[in-house]
Amino acid sequence: MPPVITAFERSPDRGRGLARDMRVRWMLEEIGQPYEVRPLSFEAMKQPTHLARNPFGQIPTYEDGALTLFESGAIVLHLAERHGRLLPTDPEARARTIAWMFAALNTVEPAVFDHSLTQVLERDRPWFDERIQVLEARIRTRLAQLSDHLGEADWLEGDFSVGDLLMASVLLRLKATALLDERTNLRPYLTRAERRPAFQRAFDAQKAAFDAADT
Amino acid sequence: MPPVITAFERSPDRGRGLARDMRVRWMLEEIGQPYEVRPLSFEAMKQPTHLARNPFGQIPTYEDGALTLFESGAIVLHLAERHGRLLPTDPEARARTIAWMFAALNTVEPAVFDHSLTQVLERDRPWFDERIQVLEARIRTRLAQLSDHLGEADWLEGDFSVGDLLMASVLLRLKATALLDERTNLRPYLTRAERRPAFQRAFDAQKAAFDAADT
Repeated sequence: MPPVITAFERSPDRGRGLARDMRVRWMLEEIGQPYEVRPLSFEAMKQPTHLARNPFGQIPTYEDGALTLFESGAIVLHLAERHGRLLPTDPEARARTIAWMFAALNTVEPAVFDHSLTQVLERDRPWFDERIQVLEARIRTRLAQLSDHLGEADWLEGDFSVGDLLMASVLLRLKATALLDERTNLRPYLTRAERRPAFQRAFDAQKAAFDAADT
Repeated sequence: MPPVITAFERSPDRGRGLARDMRVRWMLEEIGQPYEVRPLSFEAMKQPTHLARNPFGQIPTYEDGALTLFESGAIVLHLAERHGRLLPTDPEARARTIAWMFAALNTVEPAVFDHSLTQVLERDRPWFDERIQVLEARIRTRLAQLSDHLGEADWLEGDFSVGDLLMASVLLRLKATALLDERTNLRPYLTRAERRPAFQRAFDAQKAAFDAADT
């Protein structure tokens, strides 16, 4: 039995790869692990069956035999450890790579996600313009720091790792904005990640799922 | 040489244990590992010396011999693995515990932190009241889900774990609010965590550091 993940039945991003199942699909493709997808409506996500998988009613979840996991970061880390992929074996390099996973999700993503959410939910509010400027300043600070660390390197910490996989997944949300171009090395970093065959396969799979649900 | 962590020279929370060095101090106390603290001014946090420790210029960082780590979640996980404490050895329980770490930092903390930040930075803005209501609704949703999962259990996943350590650290930020009382089991959960001797030692140490800097 292949592992089963959950994903939006119809992703609010209309198949742009921004939903968090994309990270898990990408990781599963990197390790060559076939998987099945259980699409969920917004109603189904709030039902007891799904809350038993994820107490916060979010996607993705991951079920493999007796193990049920939630949180995209935890699922990606579990797969990296279990399959010995995209995570250095040297203890110090491994710890640093995990630091980049937390940095992507706890230091960079909140600013980026808040910006996306505000664009959708507060566009008609009188404070919209002023708030967006505050949020963009927060993102600029993080991107400048990320850019300074990256410098001329291809990846954040040695070879491509689960740290890069999560960081690129977060930057993908800025792909259509000019924020990614204020430093010269960030869009090329994202593009390198997107060109990985495993990314492409994962992207195509989530896009096909959206297109099928939308017809 | 004991490991060295960085912390605010003068914590903006005035010693209430909300700065992220508290999590690392707490974990170090749980494992009985002595440590030293390098206090940093806000200016020092933006200098190259500290950016080499943490590219995002934040505290805490952790230095132990050749290893330099950043991100409180990554430091706590590293210590749990290295010392074999507060992290189950059973692979499935271990993966679930790590999921709670990510849930604390990626699903619960952004809503709670945004609420704190808005209280400080946007109190005089015309949109303050309306935004606070939106943010409180987000927090209520997460707290209700957390409460439903916890039920009558003492801890999130079996014994007290690094998942509880991070979740309690996040809830500490709501300690002075009534949000924590809308469900009956959350303040007792936080109190159980706060009563751990390791929490008390860590709390007293960061409070003493603030008091010393404030005189």
